[in-house]
Amino acid sequence: MKKKILEVLKENRDKFISGEELSNSLGVTRTSIWKYINGLKAEGYEIESIPRKGYRLIEEPDILSKDDLLIELKSSRFAKDIYCFDKIDSTNNYAKELALDGAEEGTIVLSDEQTGGRGRLGRPWMSPPGSSISMSIILKPSINPSEAAKITEITAAAVTIAINNATGLDVGIKWPNDIILNNKKVCGILTEMSAELDNINYVIIGIGINVNIDEFPQDIAKVATSLKKVKGKYISRKNLVINIVKEFEKLYYNFINTGSLKRTIGICREKSVTLGKTVKIITKNGEIIAKALDITEDGKLVIKKDDGQIINIISGEVSVRKF
Amino acid sequence: MKKKILEVLKENRDKFISGEELSNSLGVTRTSIWKYINGLKAEGYEIESIPRKGYRLIEEPDILSKDDLLIELKSSRFAKDIYCFDKIDSTNNYAKELALDGAEEGTIVLSDEQTGGRGRLGRPWMSPPGSSISMSIILKPSINPSEAAKITEITAAAVTIAINNATGLDVGIKWPNDIILNNKKVCGILTEMSAELDNINYVIIGIGINVNIDEFPQDIAKVATSLKKVKGKYISRKNLVINIVKEFEKLYYNFINTGSLKRTIGICREKSVTLGKTVKIITKNGEIIAKALDITEDGKLVIKKDDGQIINIISGEVSVRKF
Repeated sequence: MKKKILEVLKENRDKFISGEELSNSLGVTRTSIWKYINGLKAEGYEIESIPRKGYRLIEEPDILSKDDLLIELKSSRFAKDIYCFDKIDSTNNYAKELALDGAEEGTIVLSDEQTGGRGRLGRPWMSPPGSSISMSIILKPSINPSEAAKITEITAAAVTIAINNATGLDVGIKWPNDIILNNKKVCGILTEMSAELDNINYVIIGIGINVNIDEFPQDIAKVATSLKKVKGKYISRKNLVINIVKEFEKLYYNFINTGSLKRTIGICREKSVTLGKTVKIITKNGEIIAKALDITEDGKLVIKKDDGQIINIISGEVSVRKF
Repeated sequence: MKKKILEVLKENRDKFISGEELSNSLGVTRTSIWKYINGLKAEGYEIESIPRKGYRLIEEPDILSKDDLLIELKSSRFAKDIYCFDKIDSTNNYAKELALDGAEEGTIVLSDEQTGGRGRLGRPWMSPPGSSISMSIILKPSINPSEAAKITEITAAAVTIAINNATGLDVGIKWPNDIILNNKKVCGILTEMSAELDNINYVIIGIGINVNIDEFPQDIAKVATSLKKVKGKYISRKNLVINIVKEFEKLYYNFINTGSLKRTIGICREKSVTLGKTVKIITKNGEIIAKALDITEDGKLVIKKDDGQIINIISGEVSVRKF
């Protein structure tokens, strides 16, 4: 019911809607309406209430709440099920448990804070409360495990476009899975999967974004930044999450329906901060210094080694650092 | 303590050992010894006890018990931790939970019966009580997810050798993951993994063997057989499990230490029932009829298509059926 009232207030953002109207259309008493409105106010919604005129939504808090996101994303194929936490160890871990229990594709897990956030290879990822986005998406694509890297590239492309839409900032992609702003990392993507040899059970996409973080610990400050630090003003996390889901859906279903990564790769090429640069490729067997030439239609990085040899590498095999 | 008494009895299989000796060497009362011996008898161990002479182990039951296997496999690098169930939904599922909780490489899960046993792509796998082996091994190899198929081939090779050791039967490998006896399936292998793009968190190897099954349901009887049906006599499951662990360890650590699959592939080639045959390759994009020519040093199947084109396929991409 709280969700329904919020929905009506959002739809009538510019005008007053009377308690009587709400009561009639939703089939609950005016006293109930009043109680739910107070509940919304307690969550941070600024709602004007004037006797005989009714209620008017003035300002929404920048919290990631299930009801709110379900309303904003109701036309999406994703986000039919959303889990929002104040604090959790890792949204990816929780998403894995949900996936094991049969959660549907497009289920989303968000947390205001992560106490055990992880990056690639188990490295820690900082997700302070109120100022970061920690988000995981459950996917069940019918693709081979060897293609899972493509999902990372779809995510990188979608997040890049979403950040641009929501903030106007022009972020870049450090192939394959880091989003870069002013030469510093502003977002990391962690793709995990459970698979048989020839079949993916599920993929969990973890997205961590430094949104409104003002200060980083000294060791991280050299390599990390936040959207707010560069933009110079507060960025709505809710708006950004909505944009990410919408952009991700578009690119993901384009890939699933066509089998082609063309649209994603177009964005990855255009926004790449890796291409044309000399990079260090870190594999399990050692490091290679090479020049990054291109990204192929299926998402591989084309590099030219010192000896002139040109090879394609998939993101599953390596880490790339700017040299 | 029961495990220690069993260990002493096994070491002194041909002679009597007195209750006093047991009591002194293990530091418990003779009454306790007597109670533990009765416990072992209740589990099916046939133990002769003669006043003034003591106890002698005559016959061991063919049950898969943790204590017993820990004793038999104490010189192994694997099997430091063994979980034995009378009944479970799926040993692979339980092994996944253990792996998520940090279980070590080489941890083994066994069940006398599976109520929800699975083959590849979620197909059901029959594991009736008392007459089959349902076994899962947890591995944590530092390899890329794209190499996981190699673990399947190591398993197929190890199981083939182990069955031969334990029964004298000459079983074959239908590339990549079925063990064949008299043209029928006697064992299936299900490899599952949890991975980041460039790093495996864990691999679960599931091994299901039809050991002493006398009759199969009609629809399965056409394609499945058991070791007992062909050998014509009862096969010890315990002995077979011990052989599998030992052979698997050898091939697995050979691969991990050398990075080469040469020893495994030697066995896979020699025991292959696929090579030289026309096979149907089932991919996500359709079927191909082709002749299987060879298995490469890194485990790929080399096939020749109708148009004369020769290509290598990895087991992660396809199912192969004899045509």
